[in-house]
Amino acid sequence: LIKEYDAGGEEHVPTLGIPDEEFAAARKLITHEEVRVVTLAKLKLRHDMVLWDIGAGSGSVSIEADHLLPNGRIFAVERNKQCIDYIKQNFRKFNVRQARLVEGEAPACFDGMPDPDRVFIGGSGGNLWDILQAVDERLPAEGRVVINAMTFDTLTAASEYFSNAGYQLEITTINVARTRPSTEYKMFEAHNPVYIIVAIKE
Amino acid sequence: LIKEYDAGGEEHVPTLGIPDEEFAAARKLITHEEVRVVTLAKLKLRHDMVLWDIGAGSGSVSIEADHLLPNGRIFAVERNKQCIDYIKQNFRKFNVRQARLVEGEAPACFDGMPDPDRVFIGGSGGNLWDILQAVDERLPAEGRVVINAMTFDTLTAASEYFSNAGYQLEITTINVARTRPSTEYKMFEAHNPVYIIVAIKE
Amino acid sequence: LIKEYDAGGEEHVPTLGIPDEEFAAARKLITHEEVRVVTLAKLKLRHDMVLWDIGAGSGSVSIEADHLLPNGRIFAVERNKQCIDYIKQNFRKFNVRQARLVEGEAPACFDGMPDPDRVFIGGSGGNLWDILQAVDERLPAEGRVVINAMTFDTLTAASEYFSNAGYQLEITTINVARTRPSTEYKMFEAHNPVYIIVAIKE
Amino acid sequence: LIKEYDAGGEEHVPTLGIPDEEFAAARKLITHEEVRVVTLAKLKLRHDMVLWDIGAGSGSVSIEADHLLPNGRIFAVERNKQCIDYIKQNFRKFNVRQARLVEGEAPACFDGMPDPDRVFIGGSGGNLWDILQAVDERLPAEGRVVINAMTFDTLTAASEYFSNAGYQLEITTINVARTRPSTEYKMFEAHNPVYIIVAIKE
Repeated sequence: LIKEYDAGGEEHVPTLGIPDEEFAAARKLITHEEVRVVTLAKLKLRHDMVLWDIGAGSGSVSIEADHLLPNGRIFAVERNKQCIDYIKQNFRKFNVRQARLVEGEAPACFDGMPDPDRVFIGGSGGNLWDILQAVDERLPAEGRVVINAMTFDTLTAASEYFSNAGYQLEITTINVARTRPSTEYKMFEAHNPVYIIVAIKE
Repeated sequence: LIKEYDAGGEEHVPTLGIPDEEFAAARKLITHEEVRVVTLAKLKLRHDMVLWDIGAGSGSVSIEADHLLPNGRIFAVERNKQCIDYIKQNFRKFNVRQARLVEGEAPACFDGMPDPDRVFIGGSGGNLWDILQAVDERLPAEGRVVINAMTFDTLTAASEYFSNAGYQLEITTINVARTRPSTEYKMFEAHNPVYIIVAIKE
Repeated sequence: LIKEYDAGGEEHVPTLGIPDEEFAAARKLITHEEVRVVTLAKLKLRHDMVLWDIGAGSGSVSIEADHLLPNGRIFAVERNKQCIDYIKQNFRKFNVRQARLVEGEAPACFDGMPDPDRVFIGGSGGNLWDILQAVDERLPAEGRVVINAMTFDTLTAASEYFSNAGYQLEITTINVARTRPSTEYKMFEAHNPVYIIVAIKE
Repeated sequence: LIKEYDAGGEEHVPTLGIPDEEFAAARKLITHEEVRVVTLAKLKLRHDMVLWDIGAGSGSVSIEADHLLPNGRIFAVERNKQCIDYIKQNFRKFNVRQARLVEGEAPACFDGMPDPDRVFIGGSGGNLWDILQAVDERLPAEGRVVINAMTFDTLTAASEYFSNAGYQLEITTINVARTRPSTEYKMFEAHNPVYIIVAIKE
């Protein structure tokens, strides 16, 4: 039985919960560790699924998913040059096996990708509605779309789309605050709340 | 490459994020899905580690950890008869490979267990201080203890212990609220906040 | 200088923060103390304003507002028989001066009421859109509407209305958890999150 | 019937919920509007009480309390020069009637103050234990102390003191996030969580 992280010599990497600091990323945009793993849990990945990671950012969700999809495939879609650089760096560092970078604009770039079982949308660059329509054309019944919304506009737009399109909808809000070990007095610092929208096609 | 869930025919089980309802459990005591996966992330498990799961309850943390420790070992410690039954049922259902049930009282029952790399304490049955002292004797440097505190008393007792014992301490609070897809109008229902205490031995 | 609560012999009543238990109410529907006072703060009441309290429930918001509107007027609108009984009981108990009960269906019953400076909507009985349109016809520029939303549907419907109608919009979410002094071990118990929508007419 | 804000010509000031921006203050240290009014509610002020506001900061709690204590007295204790300036400015701007500034170090400066019915501690400058002991000597039975803790250290120190001293203890945690009307896309921004400790002397 050979596991990813054995092979790559990355034995210091946890099998879940890679610390935020380990990723090359635009610091303010990264999905925090806690939200990232809840997002993965909500995706309900099975070992051989196809995952689309749209607006992949630093690629952190694809990287943690890599281990959860040992027989699957991951397509990390990103159009921003700086982010593409981060993803390349991170994919190399963490020695991903199932994840591939797709440089381009969603939904146009979906054409070259196989149908998804699961879709994660971390960022939509203003194209949310188009992306959701294009995803809907490719997603089979019982497929799942998970969206992390930081803004009220994304929250309402996504839920409106899914209500009209007949998906089953669950919204989970997460408020996380952390004390940091390094500070002299331990202050609770809040992360902005995230709304994790789970839509299941019927 | 053979994966756990292939072998067991449990292909419907996600590789992370098993829904709460899938576990036989005392409903009100189960660690919710969201908190469970953040707890696992905080444990920073590596593929071949030894994990002690003290006050295992339904065994849900051990079961999700099973997949994250393909070359490791998990000891689920529990003394409550009803919980022991649940754990047995759940271990069978999810076909765990690395996890073993230890029936007995902590810390007495630690004697027969190998030294841990990681320790999770979900419940302490009033023995928290004794358990932490016994854990400290067995945990190597850079070992991690993670505790889920639901009460203020556990929160303060644990943090007092670790401060005195010279561990590095981080506390993460998580507030989760969910709408449920089944209800006609979507109401946000809050789970009680959980304090995830992470203590790293220096 | 004579104050309300002197006169009524209700010297034990705080000038802000009446405990939930002091109100006759359907326990599960009452706005909790913490949310009630934040709601009042968001209303930005001035001493001589007219406040409409629509879907007044137990009347708790009107009662706490009574003290904040010494020269103003409050109209507590309610259609539910049981709630009307509660309001009558509570208005008597707390000896309100500025608040009057309006029994009837919103928005029909608005006709007999003077134009509002401030409007609070705690419940809309399925008529939210009609109520907001009727309120809009009566509310002057710089008037404020505050809505407490417990459900995602109210949250999105209200924000959609106000965006279209050209109001300035702010949404505040509040998550409260309390330990209770009476319990042996102090557990944090969460209240469901509330979304306080503030809309200012331009 | 003459009200505070009539007399001062400050008719634009709400009787509760003064916006944070209206106070001269060290921006990062001010108690936010939402937490301020919940704190006031927890104090359970009655019209003629004596309130000590220790570590008054910008004086914002004293100023909002002024209106809730029409026949009472407020002592705002502060030692920091910059904060003393802010308090003077704010007391003048809001035309406070019952509040007086006490420049000096707590607990030494308590000597010149009448016994309190209520005590609020917003900051303790490292003297928390001494302050609580000095407060305890002056506070009558059924008196209340309310502390806003931003750090885990204050939270545990205060609750340890009160448990030993035989007070009844309630802890309320508040997580607030707000969208701001001015931003183009409405993002929820979290405030750090605050722990409001309420201790009632028996």
